Amino acid sequence: MKEYPILQQLNGPKDLQALPEDKLPALAEEIRGYMVDCVSKNGGHLAASLGAVDLIIALHRVYADEGDRILFDVGHQSYAHKILTGRRDVFTTLRQEGGLSGFPKREESPYDAFNTGHASTSISAALGMARAKQLLHQPGHVAAVIGDGALTGGLAYEALDDGGDSKLPLVVVLNDNEMSISRNVGAMSRSLSRLRASSGYNRLKRFVVRVLERGMVGRRMSKNIEGFKNRIKRFVLQNTFFEEMGFTYLGPISGHDIPQMIDLLGEARALERPVVVHVITQKGKGYSPSEQNPEKFHGVAPFSPETGAVASSGAVSCSETFGKTLLELAREDGRIVAITAAMRDGTGLRPFFETFPDRAFDVGIAEEHALTMAAGMAAEGLRPVAAIYSSFLQRAVDQLYHDICLQKLPVVIGVDRAGLVGQDGETHQGIYDPAMLCAIPNLSVYEPATLTELRAMIRLAVSRDEPAAIRYCRGTLPEGGGEAPVVYGKWTVLRPVSDVVILAAGPLVQIARQVAEQLDCGLVEARFYKPLDYELLDELRRKGCKLVVAEENVAALSLYVAAYCPELTVRPLCLPDGPMAQATVARQRTLGGIDEAAMIQAVQELRGSNG
Amino acid sequence: MKEYPILQQLNGPKDLQALPEDKLPALAEEIRGYMVDCVSKNGGHLAASLGAVDLIIALHRVYADEGDRILFDVGHQSYAHKILTGRRDVFTTLRQEGGLSGFPKREESPYDAFNTGHASTSISAALGMARAKQLLHQPGHVAAVIGDGALTGGLAYEALDDGGDSKLPLVVVLNDNEMSISRNVGAMSRSLSRLRASSGYNRLKRFVVRVLERGMVGRRMSKNIEGFKNRIKRFVLQNTFFEEMGFTYLGPISGHDIPQMIDLLGEARALERPVVVHVITQKGKGYSPSEQNPEKFHGVAPFSPETGAVASSGAVSCSETFGKTLLELAREDGRIVAITAAMRDGTGLRPFFETFPDRAFDVGIAEEHALTMAAGMAAEGLRPVAAIYSSFLQRAVDQLYHDICLQKLPVVIGVDRAGLVGQDGETHQGIYDPAMLCAIPNLSVYEPATLTELRAMIRLAVSRDEPAAIRYCRGTLPEGGGEAPVVYGKWTVLRPVSDVVILAAGPLVQIARQVAEQLDCGLVEARFYKPLDYELLDELRRKGCKLVVAEENVAALSLYVAAYCPELTVRPLCLPDGPMAQATVARQRTLGGIDEAAMIQAVQELRGSNG
Repeated sequence: MKEYPILQQLNGPKDLQALPEDKLPALAEEIRGYMVDCVSKNGGHLAASLGAVDLIIALHRVYADEGDRILFDVGHQSYAHKILTGRRDVFTTLRQEGGLSGFPKREESPYDAFNTGHASTSISAALGMARAKQLLHQPGHVAAVIGDGALTGGLAYEALDDGGDSKLPLVVVLNDNEMSISRNVGAMSRSLSRLRASSGYNRLKRFVVRVLERGMVGRRMSKNIEGFKNRIKRFVLQNTFFEEMGFTYLGPISGHDIPQMIDLLGEARALERPVVVHVITQKGKGYSPSEQNPEKFHGVAPFSPETGAVASSGAVSCSETFGKTLLELAREDGRIVAITAAMRDGTGLRPFFETFPDRAFDVGIAEEHALTMAAGMAAEGLRPVAAIYSSFLQRAVDQLYHDICLQKLPVVIGVDRAGLVGQDGETHQGIYDPAMLCAIPNLSVYEPATLTELRAMIRLAVSRDEPAAIRYCRGTLPEGGGEAPVVYGKWTVLRPVSDVVILAAGPLVQIARQVAEQLDCGLVEARFYKPLDYELLDELRRKGCKLVVAEENVAALSLYVAAYCPELTVRPLCLPDGPMAQATVARQRTLGGIDEAAMIQAVQELRGSNG
Repeated sequence: MKEYPILQQLNGPKDLQALPEDKLPALAEEIRGYMVDCVSKNGGHLAASLGAVDLIIALHRVYADEGDRILFDVGHQSYAHKILTGRRDVFTTLRQEGGLSGFPKREESPYDAFNTGHASTSISAALGMARAKQLLHQPGHVAAVIGDGALTGGLAYEALDDGGDSKLPLVVVLNDNEMSISRNVGAMSRSLSRLRASSGYNRLKRFVVRVLERGMVGRRMSKNIEGFKNRIKRFVLQNTFFEEMGFTYLGPISGHDIPQMIDLLGEARALERPVVVHVITQKGKGYSPSEQNPEKFHGVAPFSPETGAVASSGAVSCSETFGKTLLELAREDGRIVAITAAMRDGTGLRPFFETFPDRAFDVGIAEEHALTMAAGMAAEGLRPVAAIYSSFLQRAVDQLYHDICLQKLPVVIGVDRAGLVGQDGETHQGIYDPAMLCAIPNLSVYEPATLTELRAMIRLAVSRDEPAAIRYCRGTLPEGGGEAPVVYGKWTVLRPVSDVVILAAGPLVQIARQVAEQLDCGLVEARFYKPLDYELLDELRRKGCKLVVAEENVAALSLYVAAYCPELTVRPLCLPDGPMAQATVARQRTLGGIDEAAMIQAVQELRGSNG
């Protein structure tokens, strides 16, 4: 800690508030250094957190009273907040099993007001809190920090619409780093660019507000100020989206000028009404490799702090395989288009975007729109393929059901990050989608166990002209499995059926293969969660096999198999009902009871019950 | 048809387009008359459809070329469209089994461009179509008709954000009847009110646009017009939300002035870019009882066309019981607040809104925000209860998971319209939520079989300070069942366990009771979908019972029971995988194989298999 002389003296927000203001920039530098130090060892969301350090210091100087709440949208920009709120020393455990979460967690600290991980929730939650404080007569002010990327989500709009109408004290801090995870998109982004360029206008406006507020009427008269401002605005000042929504708009200001932010945030808080404070930050700020390549340092594996070099696993991921295969298909079929919700890199679609920019659509963090738009495209003859992470697909369940599947429109969903995801923890697990997707009518659900199968499944799904979801895991799968071609609705027998058969899907097939060889039992790969392979199941029923059904998610496949085979003993090997905390995927399998040892035990128990 | 001399000559849009323009107002009157005639017999969504007749006539005059598409948001305003596109005579079968759907259906007519039922989808779908037309070089223009209510949904914003940026020909017709299903809410609604009042501004603006377009540069030069308009706008014209979003804004004009609409829609179509046309309509227009009480005639049962009187069933509905019970609880506990997404009447919450206006929140058609806001409220000490229809809750699955359940926040969801809903058909069935909800961690899922139990369950759920969903059916349930108090996680034995036991939930308990008495078998009411009553199931396992599991939804309870009881024969009696088309609920039960006859057969087959 001796490299961080100021930081080592701060054990909580009170210490920060006591620090002379002129020391704050140096503190920010120390926090950045400490952050790079820790994240280079553990990996994490570095670029966003580097960019928000100064803003978080300013927020904790202003929102320092009893009951004050600071909410972070998505939450991966909150590392400085964690370091400043009593978690400096344990920050070394970031994203490790039993360690600090990469996202705010109420369980972790009273300063974490609301758990996050998914985008666009902060304004809704903050408005709920402001309403609660009003009704319960509780003290405190609420601030929601939201990035320009998260602002593309419809939930943020719904909350602005309601929040602006509420007239309640609610400060939305727009942390505008001119990009969401990839570059930003949409008309709102364009509108923010105009605002960024309008500093002259805003200087005038801030001057007017300050004169009115300080010189003439005082803070308690903010309603009158508002009335007067609105009258001025009609003649002099430009209207903005946020003002249409009922928010007072202040900014833009630099998100790296701590004194100016303290000043403006204080004003915003004192207005006691809905206010947007627009701050411009630089993603990756203060660490040269991430300033130059913020996308690389969005979510990053351990790296060399000196050079920024990330050790590559060398393996081709499922996402890359998906993107590459889709690109090949698109060369053959002009009807194929690709859609992502702000995840060009994460979903492996960047080469598609570069090769066919006119046939690739990044809609921003807007999964609902992604799927309903895809339905419209399909209705007019295109063959859209949308790649969305499993946990984010939960945001578009109704669009999948209502717009795609009820109409049987030929849209293929690449369900990326399906299964356990490791260190991102509870909010990002891809373990709930099978139960949800299997209930949706007219939808087929594929899951490959190898990259070869993944390629074949994409081809098959696109060729069938009907709704399909292909689930594939984070990281990679082995090659192979191509000896048995992928046939719609058919599973594949990898080891001949015997007394006990392991029926496994996705990445668990690798584990099941070892167990089946070791214990000499049957092995079937369930290539489809839906439809089931009824013919094969009927054969297993005729033979009276005992089944271990292994799936890397909460119960879905095992439920349908058990219900279809009432006369068989079916032993589910799935994740327990409940959240799954951060750890390595291997550890999560052990904790969730679906690792090799659990599979061996399940087979042996079934054998034992044979007598 | 002799009352409708003009209408009876029209057999499709071509006939409409050939009609002299001066006959169109009389045609509109005839269509309204015919609509009242038919809907008074069958019930349906009358008020919105009456208000949109003139607009639909104008749209079909303008969007009359090959490949033109008219999309309706939600779709219950589309009756005139159906009548004018070859379905005049079959309109008498509206909402009946095998008859016309109350919503657009691609299966029904090539003029129905996109299926709807849920709100806020039209702009996304239309943008997808516009993109497809561009990429596939297909002819035609796309118009999306969206109400001011549906515009409160985040999906509409996501689509505006992307659509405005696309620069594609896309006309959004804002059908502004100054109310969604109940009164409208939010800042956007306030913004629309300002626009409505701004006719002087718009007359000026239209004049400028027309002069530029017609006098100076011609229609092909619309891009130049846009540039010039933007320059004028900065100095003279007011900015609007839609222009921030990248749309040209035209209006407002009367939605009952057909020639003016034809004119303006034609201009909008010719601009070949994103345009919003704002038309003001009167919900219920042209039929005095519905003009005076449009909410009553939003979705209406058969009524007297002369007086507007609706025959009441007299029964107290589950929704009313829910609303009344919650109001009682709120009198006892100041922490309880009520939330609806634009369904004050439908969810029975109106008395709550009238009694505790400060503790009741209508967020508009914004289910996602409703639940994330509820989570924020709960985090600060309130006890929010949100009532949402089952099929609309599909829109907030992720908020339920991510914001409420992962944090174990005490939010109770009233899942209204759970189970079969009858004539609204596929889009509105509440039959998928159990499969989705049971997968969500930390969530309990209750379902009462009687109103008495419903009341008890609301009390219990609120008292437990944890996430809970209470599912209850459309219409009503019997009183009674109070003899066995509702205990968390406990089912109740209604007839002693014997060789065969029917395990039934919700409204199927009534049917099961008759069957169980007739066939003298056991009957257990599953009051919880989650958690299962493991103790009772263990007893059934020890006794080796055969189980019929009866649930009015696609498989969920039966799956979990089958998986938990591998040694028992479990016969699911649930709805088949797939959509469920419109019919009466009784017929839907028969078609879905869950009626009394199916239950009798299931019990007899299980007995037969006993030997």
